[in-house]
Formats: sequence, C-alpha cells, structure tokens
Amino acid sequence: MSVDNLRNFFEPKGIVIVGARRSFGFGYGIPPFLQNHGWGNRLHLVNPAGGELHGQNVYKRVQDVLEPLDLAIVIVPAEAVPGVMEEIGERGIKHTIIETAGFAETGESGLALQEKVKTIAMGYGMRVIGPNCVGVVNTENRFASVELIEEALTPGPVSIIAQSGVFGNILLDHLPQHGLFISKAVTLGNRLDVDESELLEYLDEDRFTRVIMVYLEGAANGPRLVKSLVKVTQHKPVVILKSGRTQTGKQATASHTGSLSGQDHIYDAAFAQAGAIRADTLSGLIDAVRVFATQPLPKGNRLGIITTSGSLGALATDVAVSGGLTMPPLSPFTVNQARDIAPDWMNVRNPLDLGPSQKFNRLLPMLLADSEIDMVLAIIVLPYVAVKNLKSAGVTARDLFGDIASVRKQHPEKPLVGVVIGHPEFVEDIASLCGPSIPIFASPEPAAKALATLWRYSRTHDYRMQKNRKCQSSFDDQRISEDTSLVG
Amino acid sequence: MSVDNLRNFFEPKGIVIVGARRSFGFGYGIPPFLQNHGWGNRLHLVNPAGGELHGQNVYKRVQDVLEPLDLAIVIVPAEAVPGVMEEIGERGIKHTIIETAGFAETGESGLALQEKVKTIAMGYGMRVIGPNCVGVVNTENRFASVELIEEALTPGPVSIIAQSGVFGNILLDHLPQHGLFISKAVTLGNRLDVDESELLEYLDEDRFTRVIMVYLEGAANGPRLVKSLVKVTQHKPVVILKSGRTQTGKQATASHTGSLSGQDHIYDAAFAQAGAIRADTLSGLIDAVRVFATQPLPKGNRLGIITTSGSLGALATDVAVSGGLTMPPLSPFTVNQARDIAPDWMNVRNPLDLGPSQKFNRLLPMLLADSEIDMVLAIIVLPYVAVKNLKSAGVTARDLFGDIASVRKQHPEKPLVGVVIGHPEFVEDIASLCGPSIPIFASPEPAAKALATLWRYSRTHDYRMQKNRKCQSSFDDQRISEDTSLVG
Repeated sequence: MSVDNLRNFFEPKGIVIVGARRSFGFGYGIPPFLQNHGWGNRLHLVNPAGGELHGQNVYKRVQDVLEPLDLAIVIVPAEAVPGVMEEIGERGIKHTIIETAGFAETGESGLALQEKVKTIAMGYGMRVIGPNCVGVVNTENRFASVELIEEALTPGPVSIIAQSGVFGNILLDHLPQHGLFISKAVTLGNRLDVDESELLEYLDEDRFTRVIMVYLEGAANGPRLVKSLVKVTQHKPVVILKSGRTQTGKQATASHTGSLSGQDHIYDAAFAQAGAIRADTLSGLIDAVRVFATQPLPKGNRLGIITTSGSLGALATDVAVSGGLTMPPLSPFTVNQARDIAPDWMNVRNPLDLGPSQKFNRLLPMLLADSEIDMVLAIIVLPYVAVKNLKSAGVTARDLFGDIASVRKQHPEKPLVGVVIGHPEFVEDIASLCGPSIPIFASPEPAAKALATLWRYSRTHDYRMQKNRKCQSSFDDQRISEDTSLVG
Repeated sequence: MSVDNLRNFFEPKGIVIVGARRSFGFGYGIPPFLQNHGWGNRLHLVNPAGGELHGQNVYKRVQDVLEPLDLAIVIVPAEAVPGVMEEIGERGIKHTIIETAGFAETGESGLALQEKVKTIAMGYGMRVIGPNCVGVVNTENRFASVELIEEALTPGPVSIIAQSGVFGNILLDHLPQHGLFISKAVTLGNRLDVDESELLEYLDEDRFTRVIMVYLEGAANGPRLVKSLVKVTQHKPVVILKSGRTQTGKQATASHTGSLSGQDHIYDAAFAQAGAIRADTLSGLIDAVRVFATQPLPKGNRLGIITTSGSLGALATDVAVSGGLTMPPLSPFTVNQARDIAPDWMNVRNPLDLGPSQKFNRLLPMLLADSEIDMVLAIIVLPYVAVKNLKSAGVTARDLFGDIASVRKQHPEKPLVGVVIGHPEFVEDIASLCGPSIPIFASPEPAAKALATLWRYSRTHDYRMQKNRKCQSSFDDQRISEDTSLVG
C-alpha cells in the first residue's frame, strides 16, 4: 500500500460534487462551504437537472466537466450510486467519497447494492471512502467534504479516524472547547474500500499530525490493524475508543455501520500489544488526547502533586498509583527550599498539600525542578468567597498562583497538568493563567489517569524503539474471520 | 443518640463567634455574612481586644454576652482553643463548631492538644463539630458557619457530609452549575466528637434532605457507620466518595484530617451491604447525585435508548448492560406506532437510532410510554452547522426535538436522562428545552452508569423495605481497630 494512494482525498486538485442540489442537505451546503474556503475555482457541480447553483453552472453528467478532476464526492440517493460510479470511473477519477447512506447498514438489499458499487469501483481501480460517511477534513488547506463551523478548521496536531460520520462531526464541534484542534479527520462509514489501517499509515507520514484519535465499532481487518498500529505507535500515540464491549452493544453497532465488532477482550490484548491506548469512555478518549497533544513524554513514572486541597490530592494519588505511577518523596534539596518558605504547619511532602498557605506561586517551580519528579499534577481550588474577598482587596489570581504559563515554559521536558474545580469564574481565571500548554481537568481522577496513560505510552514507545521487536498479533486467523466487516 | 442533640448546630437561637477579628480570614468574613443573612440580632462577637467590628460591639469574654446563646463558633489560634472551650463551657453553651486547624492533622503535639480540648468538651457535656473544618450550612434558614456565595444558599434536596472543609466548600461553589442545590452541608474535620454516622441519622430525619452525598477519608467508627447507613438508605440514597483506595492514597489522607483510612475492600463490601452507593470518582459522585436528586426510582431495569447517533447509543449500551440494565425490544405497540412515522431506512429497535430523521419529538413520547421500558436515556447530538442552517431557515431546536420538559412531565414515574455533546450553544439550547428535571450529561457512559446506579439503589431499597432484614456488618472488630480515627 502506498500512502500516496490516499493523498488526493486530502489534497484534491479538482473536485466534482455529484448530487449538488437546491434542497436542504449535504448536497446543498457543501458547495458554498468549499467556495467560501477558496475552492471555488477547483469545484464543479453535477446534477441531472442542470441549471445553476450558488453562482456555478451545474453539469448534467460528470463527463461534461472538462476541467481537471481527481476527486468525486457522491451525495446522490443510494439507488443512483452505481450509475454515478460508472460515470466517475469513465471520467478517469480515481478517488471517490460516497456520503450516501442506505447500504450494508440497512440489511441484505443494502449490502447487495454496496457489493455492486464495490465491483464497479474495483473495475476502474478507484479508491473509495464510505459509503455512509461524511468523508474528510484537512485544516491545512481548508478542504473538507462536509460543512463545518469555522472554529473546527483551526489547524492543530490531532487527527481523527471515526467509523461514524455523525460521531466525527460531533467531535469536530466539541473539541475546540477543550483547546483541541485538528489536522485531518476522516469518517469511514461502511468501509467499502479504504479502512482505518490505511489511514493510520497515511497519518503516520503526515507531518502535521502528532496524535491520532480513533473511534471504531470493529476492525475492518484485525491483523492488518495491529500491523499498522505497531508501526504508527512508534512515532505517534494512537488513542482508540471502541464500542461493542458487550453483546448488546455489539448488536447496537451492527445496524449502524454494518460492522461485526468481534470479541472485546481480543481487542484489549491486541491494542495493548500494538502499543495503542484504549480509552474506556468518550471523555477518556478526549482526556488522553488533550494530554498527548500538549505534553512531552515523561522520562519516568515519578509523579509530584501540588494541591490546595488534601482531599483532592488523595483522590488523585489513588488513581495515579493504580495507573502505575509512583509518588516518591521530594528530594532533600526541594524539601529544604520549601521548608524555608512554608508555614510551620505545612507538611512538606508528596502530595504537597498547601492548605491556605498561599505559597503556590513559589512551590510549583520547586516541584517542577525537583530531580526526583518526572511530571507534575497541580490541583488548584479556592472557595470562591475567598477569591472575591481577595479580589476586592486588590489580590488577583495571578498574585496568588503566579504566572503558571511561564513556569511551565521553564520546564518543557516535564508534563504538567492542572485540576481546577469550583465557581466557573475561578475556573476561567486559572485556565487563563495556565494558558493552552496546560490541560485543565474538572476532576482529579481523570487528570491522574491521563498522566498515567502518557507514561505508559512513553514506556512502550521507548521499549519498542530500542528493541525494534516484531510485535505479534493477538488476532489469529480463526478469530479474525468473525471480525471482518460485513462488507470490507 | 438523639437527633435533637445536633439541632442547635443547624438552627441556633443565639450564636457567639469567638475569634472575630479585624484582619483577613474566617474571623473577619463570617460576621457580616451572617448579618447579611438575617442573623445580626442573634449574633455576638468575642475577641480579647474588644472594641467594635462590623457595627457590633465586640465582647472581651464569652461570659460578657448576656443574651441567649446556644452555639459557639471558634476561630481562635489552636493554642488558645482550650481556654476558649472552658469559657464556652462555663457559659453553658452545649454546641460548638471549632474551625481552627493545627490539631491531630499536624502530628503528635497537635493530637495532644486535641485530646485536651476533647476532655474539656466532655466535661461540660458539649457536642463539638471539628476541629479543622468550616462547620455547617443550612439553606432553609440561611445559617452557615462559613462564608458562601449567594448561589450556594439556594435551597435544594441534596445534603453534604464532607470530612474536609475545603472539599465541602468547593462542592458548594461547584454544584450550582450542575443544577444541584443544597439543604444542609457539614464539614467534619478531625471529628473530635460528632461524626458522619450521627449526621447521617440527623439528615435521615430532616424533611428537606432527599439525597445525601458523603466524602470520607475513613470511617470514624466502621460498625456504627454501617448501622447508620442500613437505617438511612431505607429512606434516602447515600452516595459516598472515599479516598485512600491505595496505600499511597492512605498516606496522603493521614496528614490531612488525621484519619487512618482502613482497608479499601472492606469499605466496598460494607457500603454495598448497607445499601449505600460508592462513587469511584468525584465526577461519579456528582453524576449519581444529579440523577437521584431529579429522577424517580425505576420500577425495573429495562432501559430504552433514543439517539441521534448510533455510535453514542452503542457506547451507552455497553455501560448500561455492564451495570446490570437490560435493553429489551420495544413493545409491538410502540414498534407499530413508530413504524408509521419513521422513514423506511430507520431500524425501529432499542437503541432507537433516529439518524437524520428529525422524528425525535414524536418518538421520545412513544419510548417513554412503552410498557416494556422502565427508564429512558435520550442522546441528542446534531452537527452545529446543521443547527445553524436550520435556525436560519426558521427551524428551532424546539421544532426539531419538541418540548422535552413537557414530555417529561407526562411520565413522572420513569427516569429520563439526557446526553448532549457538541457546540456549547447547541448544548445550552437543548439543556433549556429539557429544563431542570432532566439531568444532561456531556458523555454517554456516565449517563448510562448513573441510571444503572439508580436502578441498583431502587432494587436494594425495595428488597430491604420488604424484608426489613437485619444487615450484618462487614466490619469485624479486629479490622475496625485499625480503622478508627486517630482521634475520634
């Protein structure tokens, strides 16, 4: 498989939208979206009705477009797709995104229709994404086969592979509020041709992608997925959310993207062996990606916690230690330094519970600099009445907690994650002190868990980089047969 | 133990604050807070310096206050507490909240000081909350021994017992944004006298309290806690977050509220046997309480899911089924009704994946009315571009999804929980359609988990109500010895 094979999906030179139309829906929204993002002169519209739409001529057939074309986006009704695919093939276009639904996910006759489309595509040597998807997003050149809000087009280090179109779309709406921005996104749908393995390898080569998040209902091809993961996770973390853990959950996916989602424990083992991170929940997926996208890999598993609440420190400690991190004593140097400025009642230890000492701004840099500590979790809470009283006395959040973003910059080699809970205004004040390089969590446990995940990836990553060992697949051929997509 | 014993903490007739002062801190802030909430004429201030503060005379000694007094709030430095306690005892005051820190939580000498205070309190037959706490909140009469933001004084059905003062305070700041409001809150600190068991029984009798949330680092007295839980959980759900799951986490709590937090699995077993719900995380605690505070107990474990995203439906299904819920087929009546209005491509099943059908407003009432379904999870997502396009075409969220709050009212006997993910404006639109009686989650798994928790409580609750069996404690005497608070 050559990665260049997929490039036209993300960097087309000439695009034809087959199924552009006047009525509400994808076929109506995508042309002006692409026009508004600089693709107008490389965009061509096709609809048997002809005429004009959004100020552009509408061709009746793909053949009528004489300009260069290397990508087709198909949005016609399902029963019209085979005919359209013939037109596209005849025209010599080798890359097609089929967004239309109503194929394998609907049952027998849909599956037959999908097989027919597949045969046509193969006959022309075409690469196909979909059907039953919304295709691709590339923020670098602002190309997308789906309408998006402007915010979702801000370039960033994260790429998404999602089996479901709606799921991918919702993530694109949702992630900016967590400070997460996208390089590429792909929704796979029924995976008639292109699957997650090929896309992982494409994103591996993509210099803009630093972290890959994946939503799967089942692997299109288990052994190939493991092989791709082994390769890609040597360079980039891959965090996977997979549904279908239970029998009932599996049934739920079957009618959705036409996948059989396989035995769940096989996925657990396979992902772990391949160095991929499996998230338990949607929020766990986002949490892990937030930390991977903003933090360096730690040199070891030694966590230091600084906290203004002993309780929250204890809750974070439980999760960190359960996740494989250690909480060593602070170095004698740090203890001496801290003792000099700490009030008598403060225990100078790890977790470093500051109580109402108001020494956060002095102690955070000491903890980050400690040679015994590989990463830091900072838990910042303060009753809002105290915040308001201090504010009216002229004391700002910055006076109390320091210029956290600058402190962060002085220790770029150590992960630093924050937890802030309380009144929304306080949370906002602290988040702005922390800046975009410190992810802020609303609960101590997921923050500790995300740091443990970061460490586990760094460890497998290092180990595999050193040994360059060949990772064996947990999927054997027997098991795989039941795990292949119905249609892939 | 008589519940009336504790009433003066929440409904004092005359209050003396010992340690009122001019400089920043609790001693400065609480008097005007109480004045502003209607307690001025029942509030008296004491400080050896005398003079005037916040327009009130400051007495030099407790004895100098001639008006009726039945509650003392102590905010003097630790070393001055024994002397002050003698004054309070002499004055005949039987209820004291000691907010001062610097006792058992700081080590040997602090423990000795605390024992000294305890001996004095016992000598006078005094009941004591604290030390090392912020005392109590009662929203019904707007009494609190701690400064709070106005929002936190809105009366509601939830009561809090928290071992840590900061933790309790932060919860009070944080909960209103989840629509959770408080009846009573108590922070226990080092538990020289009053402990969580007594408070549970007090809240059991409190007609304003419907749900109790507890944060513990360790039980003051294990067998007594179990006994109280068995009793209270027959009437009200009790959700407990307990830190110290790991050895390192336990060490973290030791220097915080002076607790030994015991062996974690004993707590798991004891809480389960006693019918209490143990939360895994802070957000799990809040999630469970949100559902208990707003939803009826389900009649059975049959969950119906309605969703605009098949993927999110599958993720919720996995968690629901793992948590003990079932996802039965819809009744023939519902299937027929739904089939009449559903587009051909839609699978009318459970989970009910609506795709882009825009039939939510018609199908939600059918699902809620289904005789085969005991509770409903509604997952509402829509790409924000579609929302904006629809809005500009004059179609509102209400047109699309119906008057969800009214639908909810028609089925008051069935729990209904929502999941909304995406652009913040969309989330806000849907939340306002749902109203305060439907908790909205930002991820499908915690919503499904909270519903499973609701069902588990309803089951143990019913079972125990029927059998009225005597619940045996998992704590045996041997284990308890190591589990008793250092000081309690």
